[in-house]
Formats: sequence, structure tokens, C-alpha cells
Amino acid sequence: MMVEEQSSLTECALFQSLDPGRLTSLLGRVRYGRRQYALGETVVRSGEACDHLRIVLSGMLRSEMTDENGQVVEVEMLAPSRCVAPGFLFGRDRRFPVEVKAHQDSSLFIMERGSLIALFRLDDTILENFLDIVSSQVQFLARRLEEMAFGTIRKKILDYLHDLSREKDGYCRLDRNLEELSGFFGVARPSLSRVLGQLEREGFIQRKGRGRYRLVSLDKAQ
Amino acid sequence: MMVEEQSSLTECALFQSLDPGRLTSLLGRVRYGRRQYALGETVVRSGEACDHLRIVLSGMLRSEMTDENGQVVEVEMLAPSRCVAPGFLFGRDRRFPVEVKAHQDSSLFIMERGSLIALFRLDDTILENFLDIVSSQVQFLARRLEEMAFGTIRKKILDYLHDLSREKDGYCRLDRNLEELSGFFGVARPSLSRVLGQLEREGFIQRKGRGRYRLVSLDKAQ
Repeated sequence: MMVEEQSSLTECALFQSLDPGRLTSLLGRVRYGRRQYALGETVVRSGEACDHLRIVLSGMLRSEMTDENGQVVEVEMLAPSRCVAPGFLFGRDRRFPVEVKAHQDSSLFIMERGSLIALFRLDDTILENFLDIVSSQVQFLARRLEEMAFGTIRKKILDYLHDLSREKDGYCRLDRNLEELSGFFGVARPSLSRVLGQLEREGFIQRKGRGRYRLVSLDKAQ
Repeated sequence: MMVEEQSSLTECALFQSLDPGRLTSLLGRVRYGRRQYALGETVVRSGEACDHLRIVLSGMLRSEMTDENGQVVEVEMLAPSRCVAPGFLFGRDRRFPVEVKAHQDSSLFIMERGSLIALFRLDDTILENFLDIVSSQVQFLARRLEEMAFGTIRKKILDYLHDLSREKDGYCRLDRNLEELSGFFGVARPSLSRVLGQLEREGFIQRKGRGRYRLVSLDKAQ
């Protein structure tokens, strides 16, 4: 392994807080490999079994939601030190959710799941680092789902205000009270109040008394 | 612990494939507790540090997205054998994302993170079970995000077809080619083709030659 590859490995979140000498000694006790990929080469296909840990040593990978699932194509760049889909090595559905290709000539560290478990047994730091990586992914995804759900209420409210007829001063009067409105939007009443408050604080809407709102800028808010 | 509580514990995914005798002996080597909650009592607050593993032994818990975050309120029921937010015990943001309350009089098994790590050290099955639980959560959340994104393209396409003017036979002619349309929807061209194909197979739209589609039922498709 070249010097820069070695440092990509020690800087990987999986080996965080681990002495490089200790890492070398631990890796001497398990099986692992290294593989090169030329620009454009496929590293893993979407749906392929995920039974090896892969860490980018050099170059750059590009992951994308493939069209086989009919999804929006989403792309993530994986720079040196990044693990490839660590959240899919265990669990019910151990298959790559994405297609991964070499975006540059790249070099990868590859290790079977069994060797990874052996490392967990040999070193608590590695185990806790892995738990941190996967758990952080749960936390990130849960937050993104919340944001998407949240974005939906925001959009509903702004669209609704946009559609209401205006008074002369630009204010519109809600034609439902908050209770009715929360039923109309299919959200809990406190959530609705909270989103309205947030939109007001962010300057997207202005409130003038009970149930009267002015839309400051629809474009800015969406 | 009562007999039914004991069986809730052995049936927990964390202890799957583990001999009950072995589990008892392992639990004898770490610290853990048990706590009762009366109906309506708060078990954990949203934002509270998540440094204990909690497993439902009896009764029923109810988790909800609280309004402090302005999110849609989502509710999950946690029956006996279920862990409470296992994906938040490790990782960057070790805080409960939800409020959890006792939906019935309930009894919980409670163990500090440190004891859980000690169990991982004592038994590989427990470690792999925990990795499975958290990874399955990544996989579930990733799928839900995909579905939400997917739902968005479907809806865009159906709305677009709905808005196009109709020919006499009920077919409408696309006013853009697929290339232009994918730019219009902001999705990759193959994704667009895939969604169109899927909508056709599911019977929501019918295709008649190049660029001519008939909307079978908008209500059914959304």
C-alpha cells in the first residue's frame, strides 16, 4: 500500500482514535485485499450482495440510484477514507441500494464481513466506530425524512395562502380556524401552529391579528 | 421478572438465536434494571440523551414526533420485545428523536450503553443481532426516502398528463419529447421512462404509439 493509501485508511471513520501502529498490527491478524478500478469501471451493481467492507484508498467513486428501481437518480461522491454503503453489510436486506462506479482511477481496500467481525472482537474502538457510522446513518436518514415531511406541510400552507383571495392591504383571511385547517392539511394542530410560527419568523408570511396573514414571497419560501 | 416478561426478553431481536439459559447467564454478568410505567407516563422526552437500551417487557408504548420540531406527528406502537430507538444509542446525535409514552401500564428492561457493549464483547450473536437491528433501520429509512422521491415523480407525471388537452379517443399527445420532459421534471431520462413503463404496467396509463398516452384513472394512481 502506498503512503497516501495508508493515510486514507487511518483517516477512515472506522479506525478513528486508533493508533496507526495498532491498526497495522490488527490488520496483520485478518484477511483483506486491495483492488484497482479504472475510470468508469463498475465497482458494485445495485442489488448486488453487500458482504464486503469497501474503503476508498485513492481516487473517487460515484454512487447513483439506478433506474431499475424507477427512482430519482441521486449521486454521492465517495472520496478517500469513505466506506461504501456501510449500512448494508448487516441487517435484513444486505444488498447494495446503489450503483457505484469509479469516477477516477481508484484504489479500494476490501475485506469480508467475517474479517470485520473478527476486528470487532479484537478491538472495541473499531466496533464502536462502526456502530457510530451505521447509527449516524439512521440519524441522518430519519432527519431527511422529517425534513421532507416538514417541507410538505410548509408547501401546503404556502400554496393554501397563495390561493386565498386577498384583501386590499395584501392580507388574506383564513377561511378555516386552526383546528379545521389542521384537519384540512392532515397534520396535528400544534405542528401547524409551529410551522406557521416558523414561516413568520423566517419572514415568509406576516400575521396581522387572528387568522389574517400576508404572504411576503412565495418564491423565496419554497 | 415474571414469566411473560422473561419471554418478551428472549423474543427480543437483540437476543435472537440465543439459548435462554445462555441469555440468563450472560445477563448475570452485566448490570441492568427494570422499571414500571403507568398509563400516560412519559418514558423518554424528545431530545433527551439516549444512553440506555430499553426493551418493552409488558404493556405498550407509543412514540410520537413531537411538535417542538414542527414536524408531522407520527406515531409508532411498541409492543413487548421491541427496543426503543436502538438506532440512537450510538452515532453522532445520541438523542431520542421522539417522545415515548406508556400507552398501557408497561414494564421496561433498561440497560446502560456500557453494559450493552460488555454484552457485545461476551457474545458475538448479540453483537450481530444489534448490527442487524440498526442496519435494517438504515435499509428501511433509505427505502422510505426512495419511495417518497419516487412518489413525487409519479405525481408530477400524472398531473402533467392530466393537464394536457385530450384528443377525441381520450389519448393525449405529449408536447415534449422524453429528453425535454425529463428536463422539465428534473429527473434522469431513464428514470422517467421507467416510471412511465411502471404506470403503464400497473394500468394507470395506456400508451398508443410514440408520445401518446391515455390516463386511465388519476384517482387510482395517486
